[in-house]
Amino acid sequence: GDDEAARAAAARQATLTKPPGSLGRLEEIAIFLARWQGRAQPVLERVEILVFAGSHGVAARGVSAFPAEVTQQMVANFAAGGAAINQLAGVAGARLSVIPLDVERPTGDFTCGPAMSETAFIHSVRAGFEAVRADADLVCLGEMGIANTTAAAALAAALFGGAGEGWVGRGTGVDDAGLTRKADVVNAALAFHGGALADPLAALRLVGGRELAAMFGAALAARRLRIPLLIDGFVCTAAVAPLARLAGHGLAHALAGHVSAEAAHRRLLEELGLAPLVDLGMRLGEGSGAAVAVLLLRAALACHNGMATFAQAGVAGG
Amino acid sequence: GDDEAARAAAARQATLTKPPGSLGRLEEIAIFLARWQGRAQPVLERVEILVFAGSHGVAARGVSAFPAEVTQQMVANFAAGGAAINQLAGVAGARLSVIPLDVERPTGDFTCGPAMSETAFIHSVRAGFEAVRADADLVCLGEMGIANTTAAAALAAALFGGAGEGWVGRGTGVDDAGLTRKADVVNAALAFHGGALADPLAALRLVGGRELAAMFGAALAARRLRIPLLIDGFVCTAAVAPLARLAGHGLAHALAGHVSAEAAHRRLLEELGLAPLVDLGMRLGEGSGAAVAVLLLRAALACHNGMATFAQAGVAGG
Repeated sequence: GDDEAARAAAARQATLTKPPGSLGRLEEIAIFLARWQGRAQPVLERVEILVFAGSHGVAARGVSAFPAEVTQQMVANFAAGGAAINQLAGVAGARLSVIPLDVERPTGDFTCGPAMSETAFIHSVRAGFEAVRADADLVCLGEMGIANTTAAAALAAALFGGAGEGWVGRGTGVDDAGLTRKADVVNAALAFHGGALADPLAALRLVGGRELAAMFGAALAARRLRIPLLIDGFVCTAAVAPLARLAGHGLAHALAGHVSAEAAHRRLLEELGLAPLVDLGMRLGEGSGAAVAVLLLRAALACHNGMATFAQAGVAGG
Repeated sequence: GDDEAARAAAARQATLTKPPGSLGRLEEIAIFLARWQGRAQPVLERVEILVFAGSHGVAARGVSAFPAEVTQQMVANFAAGGAAINQLAGVAGARLSVIPLDVERPTGDFTCGPAMSETAFIHSVRAGFEAVRADADLVCLGEMGIANTTAAAALAAALFGGAGEGWVGRGTGVDDAGLTRKADVVNAALAFHGGALADPLAALRLVGGRELAAMFGAALAARRLRIPLLIDGFVCTAAVAPLARLAGHGLAHALAGHVSAEAAHRRLLEELGLAPLVDLGMRLGEGSGAAVAVLLLRAALACHNGMATFAQAGVAGG
């Protein structure tokens, strides 16, 4: 990040017609965006929402409330403009790109083999990396993939420890039996892959999924291009978490858009030291929480860039 | 509220292409707006932000970090478009009206007399009542008034009990000595007015202020006109709280836009059973928290009104 731009943004905040600090996190957001856009007055003209879709071998193990074919059906719904993320992207003034990753070909069942081959993994990471445009002012990540909260739970367990029970949740709405099956699948994966999961990248390949690998690639590209990143829910957070495990400040360019209702998301955000902007009990994925958070970023920049200073307005300071 | 419209909105939510409940509070918001707009597909075409400004006799007691003349200076800043609320109203697509209430004439020092005469009180309530247009889709309340967190603390103590220490906060940024002075002022007011404060309307007149009385009047008008209401921070919440004390469901048409950093706001919201939509550490007033929350209401309605149904999209249900 650009320390000088961040300092200039903080200095500007101190001159605006409000008690210091009274806009709370809106002030922090403006300074954060200044740091990662490298300018004291950041803009949100080109906001990109990238939604990656993938299919999962473990869907066959009854870990989702919805049938596996819903992934492809929802990709069609995105294209037709009918999904929640289409509406939210519109409100947020963002461009939505949906990138299906071999959705007709599920990953391997990771309880008894790797989710992806090296080739499939690299292909997915690259697809995410290349989806980030260099001229974006902000990149928001999202996903669609029936059964992918199970993959995310397995990845989180691999990265941060603990058994499956501590990382699984109800996803799209499984019942108690489904929840138990999810925990069993995660525990089976942890037992099968064992020590190989100690490497964060290997964990992403072995128990992740194509759309998770792609989100990781996109987060990496945003960092290289110095573009601020807005992450979404549990699956998205798990997917980018290897960046933080590989390097201490690997996610310094990221804000957590929201905390979802998926049980382990709050724990995962805490592990990463990320404080969510929104807490509305959402648990849809698709980048929906990130898209809602874009609205708060717009509010932050409207104040930061548009307010009068004490001197301009002739208002007495405190 | 309109139960039938709320039921129709809930039924519509169940058909949209997402797992049931997965949009969390965005679903509740859509149903709430349906109930109070009396239509299954609510709209936010005419969003009104009403900011009332008033001056306070107790400002002379050193209860604010800013001099009393800032109230009038900020009214000029609102008119010139330089304040935070001007920018936030723009982002929220709302019309901002600023209504100064005799700002050149402070209320009485309520530690040793009534803040307002009966005449001044009725005048202020009426000004708020008449500021609400019958054709509004949503009314947001805000305020400006140096020293008004002290008035709000006194009012909250009168309505919900407890000593000044439990209701005062740092407002625009007072130091420890200022905080002690605020508590002393509230306790002096409680002692001086005594049993007269048991009547919620009398409490609003005796220890409130003109802008608080006006927000109360506007909240009452919104209820009579069946217009949903979005309330702002600590001062605004205290101002409308008498409605809930006068009638059990007196604030059923209101959503809490945010919880502010002012210490007692969370407690006050809990007393009223209101769950804030946003928690960003804001503490500016001006309707700023409500304006940010408008963005979430827009997100909720974009999904509610714009999403495809399972049948339309050909997506399999759970």
